[in-house]
This record gives sequence, structure tokens and C-alpha cells, in this order.
Amino acid sequence: MIKAGIIGSTGYAGQELVRLLMQHKDAEIVWYGSRSYIDKKYYEVFHNMFEIVDAGCMDDNMDELAEEADVIFTATPQGLCSSLVSEKVLSKTKIIDLSADFRIKDADRYEEWYGIKHPSREFIREAVYGLCEINREDVKKARLIANPGCYPTCSILSIYPLAKEGLIDMNTVIIDAKSGTSGAGRGAKVNNLYCEVNENIKAYGVASHRHTPEIEDQLGYACGQPVVLNFTPHLVPMNRGILVTAYASLNEEATYEQIKNIYDSYYKEETFVRVLPQGVCPETRWVEGSNYVDLNFKIDPRTNRVIMMGAMDNLVKGAAGQAVQNMNLMFGLDETEGLNLVPMFP
Amino acid sequence: MIKAGIIGSTGYAGQELVRLLMQHKDAEIVWYGSRSYIDKKYYEVFHNMFEIVDAGCMDDNMDELAEEADVIFTATPQGLCSSLVSEKVLSKTKIIDLSADFRIKDADRYEEWYGIKHPSREFIREAVYGLCEINREDVKKARLIANPGCYPTCSILSIYPLAKEGLIDMNTVIIDAKSGTSGAGRGAKVNNLYCEVNENIKAYGVASHRHTPEIEDQLGYACGQPVVLNFTPHLVPMNRGILVTAYASLNEEATYEQIKNIYDSYYKEETFVRVLPQGVCPETRWVEGSNYVDLNFKIDPRTNRVIMMGAMDNLVKGAAGQAVQNMNLMFGLDETEGLNLVPMFP
Amino acid sequence: MIKAGIIGSTGYAGQELVRLLMQHKDAEIVWYGSRSYIDKKYYEVFHNMFEIVDAGCMDDNMDELAEEADVIFTATPQGLCSSLVSEKVLSKTKIIDLSADFRIKDADRYEEWYGIKHPSREFIREAVYGLCEINREDVKKARLIANPGCYPTCSILSIYPLAKEGLIDMNTVIIDAKSGTSGAGRGAKVNNLYCEVNENIKAYGVASHRHTPEIEDQLGYACGQPVVLNFTPHLVPMNRGILVTAYASLNEEATYEQIKNIYDSYYKEETFVRVLPQGVCPETRWVEGSNYVDLNFKIDPRTNRVIMMGAMDNLVKGAAGQAVQNMNLMFGLDETEGLNLVPMFP
Amino acid sequence: MIKAGIIGSTGYAGQELVRLLMQHKDAEIVWYGSRSYIDKKYYEVFHNMFEIVDAGCMDDNMDELAEEADVIFTATPQGLCSSLVSEKVLSKTKIIDLSADFRIKDADRYEEWYGIKHPSREFIREAVYGLCEINREDVKKARLIANPGCYPTCSILSIYPLAKEGLIDMNTVIIDAKSGTSGAGRGAKVNNLYCEVNENIKAYGVASHRHTPEIEDQLGYACGQPVVLNFTPHLVPMNRGILVTAYASLNEEATYEQIKNIYDSYYKEETFVRVLPQGVCPETRWVEGSNYVDLNFKIDPRTNRVIMMGAMDNLVKGAAGQAVQNMNLMFGLDETEGLNLVPMFP
Repeated sequence: MIKAGIIGSTGYAGQELVRLLMQHKDAEIVWYGSRSYIDKKYYEVFHNMFEIVDAGCMDDNMDELAEEADVIFTATPQGLCSSLVSEKVLSKTKIIDLSADFRIKDADRYEEWYGIKHPSREFIREAVYGLCEINREDVKKARLIANPGCYPTCSILSIYPLAKEGLIDMNTVIIDAKSGTSGAGRGAKVNNLYCEVNENIKAYGVASHRHTPEIEDQLGYACGQPVVLNFTPHLVPMNRGILVTAYASLNEEATYEQIKNIYDSYYKEETFVRVLPQGVCPETRWVEGSNYVDLNFKIDPRTNRVIMMGAMDNLVKGAAGQAVQNMNLMFGLDETEGLNLVPMFP
Repeated sequence: MIKAGIIGSTGYAGQELVRLLMQHKDAEIVWYGSRSYIDKKYYEVFHNMFEIVDAGCMDDNMDELAEEADVIFTATPQGLCSSLVSEKVLSKTKIIDLSADFRIKDADRYEEWYGIKHPSREFIREAVYGLCEINREDVKKARLIANPGCYPTCSILSIYPLAKEGLIDMNTVIIDAKSGTSGAGRGAKVNNLYCEVNENIKAYGVASHRHTPEIEDQLGYACGQPVVLNFTPHLVPMNRGILVTAYASLNEEATYEQIKNIYDSYYKEETFVRVLPQGVCPETRWVEGSNYVDLNFKIDPRTNRVIMMGAMDNLVKGAAGQAVQNMNLMFGLDETEGLNLVPMFP
Repeated sequence: MIKAGIIGSTGYAGQELVRLLMQHKDAEIVWYGSRSYIDKKYYEVFHNMFEIVDAGCMDDNMDELAEEADVIFTATPQGLCSSLVSEKVLSKTKIIDLSADFRIKDADRYEEWYGIKHPSREFIREAVYGLCEINREDVKKARLIANPGCYPTCSILSIYPLAKEGLIDMNTVIIDAKSGTSGAGRGAKVNNLYCEVNENIKAYGVASHRHTPEIEDQLGYACGQPVVLNFTPHLVPMNRGILVTAYASLNEEATYEQIKNIYDSYYKEETFVRVLPQGVCPETRWVEGSNYVDLNFKIDPRTNRVIMMGAMDNLVKGAAGQAVQNMNLMFGLDETEGLNLVPMFP
Repeated sequence: MIKAGIIGSTGYAGQELVRLLMQHKDAEIVWYGSRSYIDKKYYEVFHNMFEIVDAGCMDDNMDELAEEADVIFTATPQGLCSSLVSEKVLSKTKIIDLSADFRIKDADRYEEWYGIKHPSREFIREAVYGLCEINREDVKKARLIANPGCYPTCSILSIYPLAKEGLIDMNTVIIDAKSGTSGAGRGAKVNNLYCEVNENIKAYGVASHRHTPEIEDQLGYACGQPVVLNFTPHLVPMNRGILVTAYASLNEEATYEQIKNIYDSYYKEETFVRVLPQGVCPETRWVEGSNYVDLNFKIDPRTNRVIMMGAMDNLVKGAAGQAVQNMNLMFGLDETEGLNLVPMFP
């Protein structure tokens, strides 16, 4: 039985991690970290957990946690995990960091986009970018996982095969993404109040969102050259779900079958990536509550562009589910353990 | 492995049943009945099931189904199950009927409230009202289950202990209920369009809703005398969830502890009924996707009334989950098999 | 041209007041009070007002405001208006208070339910409860208006005729009310975040909500005796709208026509109260953005109860619209000036 | 007083037209056309109109209507208006067609994208594309107006200034649009049910949506050459609102001020187009219920692209409001008459 500790267990991603781990047969949670709710029962914060979780919330003590836990999940604001990690900690336990601290290999670039100083640059090199479908073998051996961002997971999986195979002009990539509101976190901000979000859609972080370099880096590794692209997130009045609509010019004409074959060759064996039948657009409702990413594409012969689409649950494959998938790989379990969740509709 | 057939598998309750049975380790679905989608793949109707269910939809052939299935779930409009049931069918298989056909013991009363003729009155007596927490022993031995309605499940469980113990004046019972829109079904009706339901709340079926006699009957059995009450359902702009707010006068003064003890004595051993801590009102978000019913109450000394509240997921405990719970009991399985679902939030 | 000042112009009710007054031909706003946003342009807080309102937000200076404004609207937390009012102020200007400070005639009762000391008891007697349909003549002569609460407006108008005419047993009145989330205000609270409210319904303030004594007082005046009742509010995932479902036992049998005649005799001449045709339940969507209250009722002969229903927009007739209606009366204008708004659907 | 007839008054756009015309001081509705609800009172279809509209719904009799009405609005499916128009009709009255029948000047292109035969090609040339901000003078003289589509209105106004001024490479234009569900109409379709739309976002009509040629044509006129672009609409779980996020490469580097000046030079005098302050993204909530289009842009120096954004209410500026604006121009009224509506929030 894997002993798991969670730092930041009372945010939306942390709570989703609790939901998933409670249904995981080889893991148990030994530490519900939450600075905001110390000494409160966990179920007092989230009443869905009443009679399911009896533990109380605890402070963030990384050293003590390292003694008790086989793996620590950090679902915390930027800069926190990187300030707590140390060789001493990593020698005793594994860390899966759901924040962005170890996702960008170039520390200067991280500091530029995130506007904070990176407190432990020495671990960036070691950290493995935990997009399991792409870095599976490295994940298995890792001590420190940089769990991918929600937008990057959906964007990268949507574009990766065509970038890697050189089918698209990487200078033309535009990603227009839409997210449910749980992605904005559980902080008490006027902008995230029900009446401010409901009956509204808006773009935000235009040409400046922090997930941009993460996407660029990974697609750059795929195609073997630096990538600069446009990424525009939008806030949608719904709880969960991310939809990516990405555009790129084809380097040369391609048929549906050619591109379908490429997607299939990358994802046919992947449990959590579903390439939909021709003509079926991904929709967030079909993946809700599950670890699936649904993908599809459409060629527009009029403009010679391909439109690549992806849908997933931002809290599962975009956060807690992918973290569990990484844990499964790191501990030699079946990759799908605890994640065989049928999407819930409606 | 229990072989299950579903008639009406492409309504919301039918689809939820598929979701639950796909995650049930002792059951498999052998028949996806759907008159509307014959010969379509099931996943073409519900893309959440892509790469999960490969079967196609089939016509409703009760006789053939009786040969193949150990249990048949009917998630169909009123009058259909009762027109298909027969001794021949029941001699070969069990039936769990999610419609109202066998819920009312008095056939005349059924016909009056439902406005249709009952085509198989001879089976009404045999049918067991499948509210497991109340009729568990009878359910275990049943061939034919009348799976309770969504509103009645939540209403009855909220009021039952105080009715049974004689604490409340049954002539004063008023049930004000609120339901998400999946309860209205998947029929293409203008009234259920997004723009008609969103940003709106309304009462409907005032003093005439068909779930009224079902609730009255069961509470009548509890208190040992006929019950006449007011039941008012409301349509809420959300997908899932039922909330019941019920009012009754106390027969004599009672303390919080007295009433809490009564609820606990009925439900402490019940996995799926959670009596919340004092002061915590049930909310539908805390039970979404799960088989739980959350209950609580408040005494108002100013009016000498008790306000009884219940929340549950109308598609799970109010339909498909309760049906699986009944199946588990009928086949001697652990009652919670396939139903250990942590509520999903947000 | 009436010069209007608003204290608390950046809450939801305050902003709605701005919307209404901008479309009022005989009023202009001279003061946008907002402690939280001093020196910000008003449109920076609410971008709907861009190129419509150019003024900046100002501090709450009641004395200065009294010099400049013919009427002051206070859309502020409990206790603020009552701490600012004075004979000096009232000698120069009129006040329409959207808070609860002057709604309860018995100051002890106010202090008990609101848990704060009333700082200016001497003005309670003078204040007129501004439910125009009931207190029209007093409103016309008032200097200080206690603008009714949202729940009370809808509850009282729904029940008033039958209470006043003695048709119902006032000891049996139960009000089950449902409100959109704008009623919870614009404060940054976790409980009001999109993901906490969406896909959820809950009761709150059960048997303890502060609008209870306000409703009891007014219905008490109607029937000439003290009234004690149950009032249970619920939070609904929508922006605007209040629905009231109220229950009471009939003192003796009554026909539809009898009760319809009573409602008509009270409201036929009222522009903003619409008694719907038989069988049509009030729905919040049909009044959104307007000053209407839609009413109807249903007699249940089985229980001898009458179910009284009302729907209105909590921010218009439940707050800002009623405040403008009061202003119109106080200044001798046509009562409907600026309020002839066709409800917006969908 | 202008006498207006509406064919198709019981769709969402038709009903919005009724709302706007009821508040227009120089127009009155003389004909509520609705094939589906003949002989029903209009308020029985839309109860918001109770005690506001007393008329009944009537059949679509274009000849009779031409005698009675000064202007006929057709809010009907494709092909209907073009099958009813005739010289005889146009000699007696004006027509404002909210459908697409006369928007595309090339009839073959219309037939190709719409898949139906155009029944009255002879009137296409005469019809004026009623985007008032661009074709104002032609609108004033027109007998037949092709009222622009919702997506095209928002897309064209967002891109037009930069296309006309030659600042952007028209071969790189990508429009990613998002719409509320009222744009999908009031037909009873499963896909538009509450539970299918809520908690979901999806693209549809990818690389094939019928509004594509309309946008291409108008931008082609602006830049003086044929334009081929990508347009991808998405369905958002909200009632009203369209958001356009458009991307294009700059022909050469440009500063914020340069582009701001261009937008201002086109729109500063326009009442209904608001170019927002720097850094403020358009949001649909800020225009709801009004005729405004809110615009802004962001230059991304990293990719040398400009992101152009627009938000409007699809039922007002995208349909009924623009139709009234056209009517005002055609009849020599103040262009803003009946349209001075402050956006309603929340």
C-alpha cells in the first residue's frame, strides 16, 4: 500500500486527488495538508467526504511528511514546492508536483514568465515532465515529477503527433483554449463569483499566459526546434473541462487517412487518449470525471490548415488524474489503476 | 457474472445504469435496448462510452431478453414494463422496473393518477417496492422490483423515521422538492431546451404530481394510517440532484438530541444514508455522482415544526444506483458493490 | 430633474440602481458612492457602463451628499444607513434605504434578529415601509423609506390578499423561497464562487433567516394579529430571480373564482403585479430585468390548502426597481417612470 | 408611427424583436406571425409578454401583411423570405430579412453553402447588407435589407478596420468564435436540451459553417480582394452572447497606438461600438441585453500577430437590435431610437 501525502489538499485539484486516491486500491492518504484549514476535519471543508474521510487537515511539514509518505503530491501555488524540495526529502520519498515549478527546463525562462525567483534550480534538470503518454519511461524512474499544466496537457496531446511527424508548419500554430472555472482555483476572488462567471465568456492572459512557454517547450522537443506560438485561454461558465481548438498550416497537402493514421500510431495503445471517429468533435461533457483526452482533427482544404481539437477534464487528466497516472508508473503499478472511471454524463 | 439487460438504455437513467454497471465487478450488460436508436452503436448516442462500450442498440424483445439475461432493467415510460411482464418472463429472469408501473399497490389509484390503464394488475401484489433501506429483506427475495421514484426516495427517507416513530402530525406534512433537469428526461421538448431552463426556477405539477400517491403510500405504511400531504416539485437549472425540504408539526416538543437519536437509530448502519452534523444543511453538490442521500433536520421552536431536509443524486440513488443496489440484494452480493463512488465535486 | 446620490453603488443592487436611473428621464445620478473603489472610474468596476457613465466612485459623505442630492439611496450593509441618518440630513434630502435598518418597527426585535445595536431608533417610527402596492399613500409623503427586502416583497405580495381577507389560517403559513445568487451580494466569499454555487441547490438560514420578522410583521398588519411562520430560503444556480412557494390552510373551502377575485381586487390596477391565468405557474425567467411580480395560486382540495406562488427579479422589484418606484411616488412622478421594462428572455 | 409586421415572431430573435419594438416610441407591431402557434395569444407562448402584448399569433400572409405594414421583419428559416418577396410586396412595404437569404451576393455561392436553391435571385443585387456601421448610407435608401448574421456582425466589426487599412495579412485570418445557446434557435432538438448543453463546450461546423462566406465576402470588400479564412464556432453554456477571438499576422510591425488610432477612427463616432481601454478584454456579460459591440485587440510581438476580440449580444446587435437599427435608418429616425438600453448585469 502506497502511503501518499498531499500538500494543498483543500484546493480543487487537491480535493480531486483525494477523490481519486480514495478509490485507488493500492494507495492510502496519510496526510491532508492544508495551511488554511489546520485542525478542521477534512469533511468539514468538503462535505462530499463525510463518512468517507475522517482525518483532519494538517500543516505543511515537508520533513515529517517525507518520513511518513512514499509519495508527496504538492497541489500548491507557484514557488512553494520548489522551496520545500531538498536532497534529504528526495532521498526518502518521491514528489509529484502539480504546480509549474519544475515544468520549464530553462530557469531564466521560468522566472521571466512567472515573475518569481526559482528557489531550487538544482532540481530542475532531474525533474521529469510527467506527460505519461510521451515520457512514460522517464517517469518510471523519476523521483521528482513536474505534473503538466491543464492547458498544456490538452494542447500538447492534440498537436504532438503532427508536430513530431513534421506535418505542420510550427510557425503557424495558434491554440485557442476554453476552460471551466475550477481551473481558476478556490480562492475567494470577486472575478470568480458565480454572478461574474455565469452567463459570460471572456479571453484572459492574451499573449501572456504562463502556460505558453510550457507548451512551446514540449512541442519544440517534438519537432526539434524552438517553437513560438499563440495561446489564448478563455473562461467558460461550467465547472470542469478544457477544450482546445488549435490551428496550423499543413506543410503539404494531406488526406484524412494520412493524418488519422498518424494519430492512431501515437495513441492507439493509449488507454486514456481516444481519437474519435471522423466528423465527431470532442466535447467536454463526454470526458467529465474521467482521465480521458478525446481528440480529433479536421482538414480545411480551402485554407490548407488542419484544425486539431482536444477535450478533457481539467481536474483529472489536467491535474489529479495525471498525477495518479504518474504515481502508478513510478511505483510499477498498472498505469490505469484507480483511473478506470467511466465519464459521467450528464 | 450477472447478465443484465436494459430496456430503455438511451434515456438519462438508462445511460447512468450503463455507467454504473460498467464499473460493477460482478455484472455485465448483454442487451442495450433502445427503440429510438436500433442498430446505432451505443457510443454514437453517448460518446462518453467510446472505447468503453462497443455494443449496438437493440429493439425491445422481452422474451429473447428473458432467455439471455439474469436481470432486466426497464427504464421506460409508464405502462411499458407492465405490458411486457409475464409469468413466463418472471420464471426465467428478474425484473427491476425503474418506471412507476408497480409502485402503487392500489391499481385504481395508479390509474387515476397516471391516467392509463394498468395492463398487468396481477403482478402488482408480488412487486416489491425497492427502497432498500426500508424493505431490504423483501427485496432479497423478489422477482419483480418497483424501483422507487426519485422524489419519493428522497422524500420518504427524509421523513420516514419521524413518521414511523409518531413524532410528527401526518396531517401537516408539506414537501417542497427541487430537482435538476435530468429528471425531466431526454425527450426533445421545447420546455427542456437549455434557454428555457437556464436562469429560471418554477414549480410544476402543483398539487397534482404523480409522485404524490407513492410518497403518501409509503409514509402511510410507516405510520399505520392513510396519509394525505402536499408535494410540490420545482425545476432547477442544474443537471443532477434533488433537494427535499419537508415541513411538519411536532406532536409534542422535542429536542435536537431526541430527533437526532431517532435518525441515527434508523440510518447509522446504512452505508448510503448520511445524517449530517448539526447545523449542516444537505446540498446536492455533495452527493453528485454517488448513491448517498444526505439528511438533516432543524427544529423551529417558534412554530413547533421540524424542517426535514434531504439531498441526493436523482440519477443514482433516485434511479440507477438504487436499481443496482436492489440487484445486489437480489443476487446476494454485497449491497454496496459497484456503488462505492465518492461524490464528485465540483 | 431629480438629483440622486447612491451610497453603495458598486454592489449588485447599487449597480442595478444605476442601470435603472440611467434610463429614467427625470433623474440623474450625482454621486456614485463606493468605499471600496474610491477614485476608480465607475465603468472600471462595471464595464457595461463604459461610455455610459463617466463619473468616478466617491467616498460616503452623507452631509455633503445631503447638500447635493434630492434623494439618497443607501444600498449598504445593515447598520450603515441608520448610523448616517440625522434630522439635519432628512431636512435637506430624502432617503431610500435598501438595507433592513428601518424595516422592523420594534427596535428590540430588529436587534435580536440582526445581532447589532440600532444606532438611530428615533427614526424608525417615521420610516415608511416602501411596499408601494400596500403603502402607496404613506410613501408619497415620506422622507425616509425602508425599501423592502427581496424575499419579503415577493412573499408578502403573494400572501397579502388572502391574509387580509381572512381566508387562510395564519398559523399554518409556510414560505419556501428560492433565490438567484445575486441576492448573496458581491463580496468575495468562497461560498459564492462559481464552482460552489453551480450544479447545486441548498437551503440556508433555516428557521433563522433575518427576513422572517419582516414578513411576519407585514402579514401581521394585514390580518390584524401577530403572525409566526416558517420561512426557508434556498440558493439557486442562477443570477437573478426569486420564486416563492407558500402554503396555508384555508379557513373554509373556497373556489378558484373566489380566490381569483380577491387577487384581482387587490392587484388589477397594479401595473407591476400580474396575476397569471389559471394553471400558469410563475417562473422567474418571465420577469427577468423587469419590475413585475407574477403571482398565481392553486387550491388543493385533498389537503384544503392553498399554494400561493410568486416570481420576481430580486434586483428590480426586490431592490432597485422598487426603490425607483418609491422615488417616483415621493416626487410626484408617474409611478412607472423608468420602470416600463419588458422582461428579457431568454 | 411605423407599422411593423413580424414573420417568425415566436423564435428567439423574433421574440427579442418584440421586446425591442415594444419599447420603441415610433413603432408598433401590427402582425405577430407564427405558423406554429396560430390563434394562440402571443403571451401564451412567452409569458414575459403577459399584460404587455394582447395580440394573437397569425399565419404568414405576405400579401396581406404588405398592405398593413410599413416594414416586415422576417425572422425565419433559410429560403422562406426569398420565396415570399416580390416586386408587388416591395412596392408597398420594406423588408428586413433576418435570415441569410440575401446576404451573399453570389447566388451560386449561397446555394453551395446553404444547400438550397435560391428562389428569387433577382432581388439579391438590390438587397443591402445591413451592417449599419459600414453601409449606413445604402441602408437609408434600401427597400430590402439583408440583416447580418450574428457571428458575421461580431467578426466583421472586429476585423474590418485592420483589413480595410491593409495592416493584416488576410491569408492568415483565423476566427475562433463562441456563442450562447439562443443562437441555436428554439426548435425542439435533443442536442439543445439543457442537460446536453450545460457543463459542456464544443466546436461545431468546423471548416464548414455557413457564416463563413458571409464573413469572407464582407472582409473581401474591405480589403479589395477575395478572402479565404478559417471560422470555427463553439457552443457555450449560456443563454446570450457571442465572443470572437480573431488572429492575423501583421503585415509589418505596429504599435498599440497605431492600431488604437485606426479603431478609433472607424468607431469613435459610432454609438454602438465601444473600443475598450487598453488591456480590457471584451466579455459578453458587459453587453447583455444591449446593442453594443465591445472591441479590443492585443499585439503579440513574439509572433507578430494581432489578436482581435469582440463581444456582443447575439440576439440584439446580432439579430433584433441591428434590425431595429436598420429600420431606424430606413425611416429617417434617430439611429439609436429604442436601442438606448444599458447592458444588464449580472
